[in-house]
This record gives sequence, C-alpha cells and structure tokens, in this order.
Amino acid sequence: MVTIKDIAERLGLAVSTVSKGLNGAEDISAETRQLVLDTAVEMGYSLKKIKRNAVDKVCIFIESANMAFETNEQFGYEIVNGFKQAALTRGWEVVVEPSELNFRTLEKYDSYMLKHGYSGAFLLGFTLHDDWIRQLEKTGVPTVLLDNFIENNEHVGYVGTDSREGIEQAVTHLASKGHRKIAFLNGTKNSMVSNERDLAFRMGMKANDIPVDEDLVAYGYYVPDCAKSYVKNFTDKGATAVLCASDLIASGVVNELNRLGKKVPQDVAVIGFDDLPIAEEMSPRLTTIRQDRKNLGKSAALMLDGLIRNVPMSKLLLRSKLIIRESV
Amino acid sequence: MVTIKDIAERLGLAVSTVSKGLNGAEDISAETRQLVLDTAVEMGYSLKKIKRNAVDKVCIFIESANMAFETNEQFGYEIVNGFKQAALTRGWEVVVEPSELNFRTLEKYDSYMLKHGYSGAFLLGFTLHDDWIRQLEKTGVPTVLLDNFIENNEHVGYVGTDSREGIEQAVTHLASKGHRKIAFLNGTKNSMVSNERDLAFRMGMKANDIPVDEDLVAYGYYVPDCAKSYVKNFTDKGATAVLCASDLIASGVVNELNRLGKKVPQDVAVIGFDDLPIAEEMSPRLTTIRQDRKNLGKSAALMLDGLIRNVPMSKLLLRSKLIIRESV
Repeated sequence: MVTIKDIAERLGLAVSTVSKGLNGAEDISAETRQLVLDTAVEMGYSLKKIKRNAVDKVCIFIESANMAFETNEQFGYEIVNGFKQAALTRGWEVVVEPSELNFRTLEKYDSYMLKHGYSGAFLLGFTLHDDWIRQLEKTGVPTVLLDNFIENNEHVGYVGTDSREGIEQAVTHLASKGHRKIAFLNGTKNSMVSNERDLAFRMGMKANDIPVDEDLVAYGYYVPDCAKSYVKNFTDKGATAVLCASDLIASGVVNELNRLGKKVPQDVAVIGFDDLPIAEEMSPRLTTIRQDRKNLGKSAALMLDGLIRNVPMSKLLLRSKLIIRESV
Repeated sequence: MVTIKDIAERLGLAVSTVSKGLNGAEDISAETRQLVLDTAVEMGYSLKKIKRNAVDKVCIFIESANMAFETNEQFGYEIVNGFKQAALTRGWEVVVEPSELNFRTLEKYDSYMLKHGYSGAFLLGFTLHDDWIRQLEKTGVPTVLLDNFIENNEHVGYVGTDSREGIEQAVTHLASKGHRKIAFLNGTKNSMVSNERDLAFRMGMKANDIPVDEDLVAYGYYVPDCAKSYVKNFTDKGATAVLCASDLIASGVVNELNRLGKKVPQDVAVIGFDDLPIAEEMSPRLTTIRQDRKNLGKSAALMLDGLIRNVPMSKLLLRSKLIIRESV
C-alpha cells in the first residue's frame, strides 16, 4: 500500500507538502501540486484516500467534436439531462466539461480527476484512439463510458443501447412492405457500436431470408453530407430502402433522394436511428429506431453510483425499439 | 385501452364485482377473483392500474430444484441477501417464494403477480423450457431474470455475470504454468450461460495459442457426481488441468482425482467457478472464478427498480475475476 511518505520520499518533498498537494491546499505552487498528483497516480496511491466531500462531485466529459449536447435537437442533450436528474436524487454535484483531444494529450486522466476532486466521471463521444481511453485500462477512477467497453478494469463500465432488437424490427418492417433491396448506411467504421449494428443488420436480413448485397452497405461516419456520396449509388444498384445509423444521416438521405427526383416513401423508404426531435419534424415524418437517451443518462448515473461503491458493473444496456411513422 | 367495463362485459359480471376482483376485496369468491384476474391479463388490462401500496411489494421466485439458497454455503444465499439489502434501502417489502415446476403449470404468471399485489419479481433458477419463462415473452409485470434473456419485452431484464474475462484469465493462468491439455467441464448443455462460457473457453484457448481437444470438453449439468463420469476419461486422454463450471463440480473433480491416486495440483490442476465458501475450505484451497453474488442480488434490485419506473433496461452484467489460491 503506497503512503504519503512513499510519495514524499520519491519526490524529495516534505510529507506536509505532498499532503497539501493531495488535498488541494492553495499554498503550494500549481506545478508542485501537479507533480504530486501525477506521482501519486503513477505509484498506485489509493484514490479513495483523497478527501471526499460530503457531496460527491462527478463530471461529464464530452468530446465536443463528436457529440453535440447544447440544445434539445442534439443527440447528447437528453443524455446529459437524464444524468443530471439522476445525480440530483443522489445529492451529487455535476460539472459538465466539454473538451478536445488536444487538451487530453496534455493532462493525465487520473491526475485531472484527482486535482478536481471528482469521485467519478461519465465520458461521452470519446473514440478508441483517444489517449484517455487508453489510460482507462489502468484507471482507479470510477468511470462510465457511453458506447465503449474497456476490458479487465472493474472501475470502468459501459452503458449503451442494444441496437439488435431495433434493427431486426426495422428490417422485418421493411420486409413486410415487400422490400428486398435494402441498403444500410452505417456510422463510423470499426467502432464497437457500428460493428454490432452491422451484425444486427445481417441477422435481421437472414431472419427475413433476404440476401445482403455488399454494394448496399457503407459507412457514413454520422456526417449528413455522406448521403451525397452514397444515395445515388444505392438507387442505381436498385435499393428501394435505406436504413441509416442516425436520424441526421436519414435527413441527408431524404434530401438527396428528393434532389434526385425520388419520393419518400413511394420510391424509396428511409429509416433513421435515435428518434431525435427532427424525426417528428421531417417530411415525411421519419420512421426510426429509438434510443431512450434520457434513460441512457439516468442509467449512466446509476452505474457510476455502483462503481463508486465497488459494484463491479461491466455493461448496462437499454432496449431499442422501432417507432413507425411515415417514411416507409 | 381495456377498461373494467370491458372485462365485466366479457365475463357477464357487474362492474363492481370486477373492480373488487382487481383490488383484492374479500367479499367475492376466490374463483371469481381468479377469473377476473386471468381475464384482465388476457385482455391486456394495464397492470399499472391495479392499486399500488405505498410500499412496493416484490418477490423473489426461486426454482427450488435448481437453486439452493438457505445457507451461506449455497449459491443463491448471497444473491437473495444482496437483493434484500438493496430492497430495504428502497423501502420495498420482499417475499421469497421457493416454488416448483408443477405449481407453475397451474397458475399463470401475470395472474399470480396481480393476485398477490407484487409490483415486480426477481426469478432465480428458472430454465428455458419453464412455462413461466415462455409467459414472460408477453408479461407486463416488471421482472428480472438471473442468467436468462427474453427478447423484445421491455418489462423484462437480465442480470448476470460476464464469464468471459474470468474464463480467459483462468486459461491464461493455466497456460502460464505450462498446461496445454486443458479440460472444460461445463454446466447445462444449451443454456445461455453455458454457451457463453464455452465461447469464452475457446477464445481463451485461442488467445493462448492452445488447440481445443473436443474429447476434453463435456457438460456436467452442475451435478458434483458428474466428475465420476468424466475425470478418468479426461486424464486417460492426457488432461493436466480441469476447468469446472462451478465450485461444487470442482470439489467432485478433486475427490475423484484423489480416488484415482492423482494429486492436485501436482498431477492435475483444478479451477472452479463461483467462489463459494467451499473454495476456501477445500484442500488444496481452490483457485476459482469469482461471481460477486451479493452484488448480483443488489444489481437485480436496481434493475427491477428501473423496470418498475419504465426504464427499458435489457442487460446488466458484472465482471468475473480469477481468484488464485492453491489448486493450480
């Protein structure tokens, strides 16, 4: 067990200085404090020993480049909202920190958490090549990730939507309307979620006895503009339906189809994913696979609560569900 | 939306009689009450409308034939305990109901829950061919299953241990000690959990570059006596290690090895699963894969709480972990 004395010896500092560094006293320099925290983390000093406030302070870190959350129309909004609501009932203080990749290459994850007195964190929009995600393999800070899984670290949990049922329902719905040439415009290639959705799409097609045409499967990286690159190709190859990995992609697909003189749903059916407010507002109103974003946020708080109390939660998944409107 | 009037019309009863049946009044016969409840369930009457007590009453149903829970040595004990503890903090009343398959062919699941005023249930030890498990595909009663998953019903959730990491750790541990002929004595054939563990075993072997010998893979159905049927066969075929699907199976395997004149761990290494108290008491002390049973129970309560509040939780998994003692 690493003690304050061990840290002081390693750094050649007084025990009182190390203690100040760990407890956030103001009368040592910021550089010394950072050095103490980084060393404490490196030596495996127990994060539990850091003075806890009566009220736990937790944070939501959001990779701003991948996850918009400021307004109700955006994917992250209800997730953050749900998390805050569940945190409130637990008496937690919640700090929302949008951040950028550059910032995270300068600060170590554990040191950052220690320095700010966070008891735990919820990470949104991070990608697997992110420095912090790699650091999570060894962290002792209770951490919940949306749509990402870290192996063999019982301080880190994964919360997400099980896409499988929703996607199978979507394919079955299309099949019941006679569609046989179904295109799938997926999200980011090689991400865990996109791989699962790809598998679900193939299972759904198989269950409905429809062959998958590899020319009709593509990755749009959640960029609505991706529609421009793929839609014409899909329809040229005979696609009568496009299943999309987000409502924003679906919106781009509908626009592009209209530009090409095709009507939705008469000529081509379109299904989205997420059930953002835009799905209700589109014309035609978008049939889509719902992710329960508010409850994703609440579930993240509930999982973080468990991790803080040493419950080794690994995965918590919510069901997805097809919401039928007018675009099929 | 089905109303009390609809039910009364269907049955040719007075509305007041149906109302009494749904609300548990004592001045109608038990037969009439049962008829009202069964009909309400069949017609899709909202279970939410049944009068809720201020304190929720929930139950733990246990298939006695598959799951022992009365004493600390038994698998179900800490699960029931953990559930009760978490229920206490929620102000729930918990009723534990051991039951048998025969009983469940007489009563319909939803009717039974209605009649007893349960807001939800946690089901332990049920098998897939059970009548009630089939009824869960359509139930509106918030229900959590241990180690079983129901598709497409957002009122039912699954809590369990993710065996994968523990099994991979176990295989890697054996490989690091030079074992190449590793036998796997799994549980009940074709159950979801056994299938996952089989897959994890094969992934662990592959990760360690060890071929799986199909003669060394068998299903013991959690009966300690199964050791008698398999152990000699395993060792005759050159096995130097046996990975078991429970500590009780491992205990049977150690006894059988001793009977055959083989020493553990010198001649054959043995690894268990669960980390029951017996693992500490065996000679040699058993290396085993831990399931955190108390937290499984707590997580079940937490999930049931979510389901009661319409959070569409589907899966909640805890991590498994190899506990190294003396049997390898």
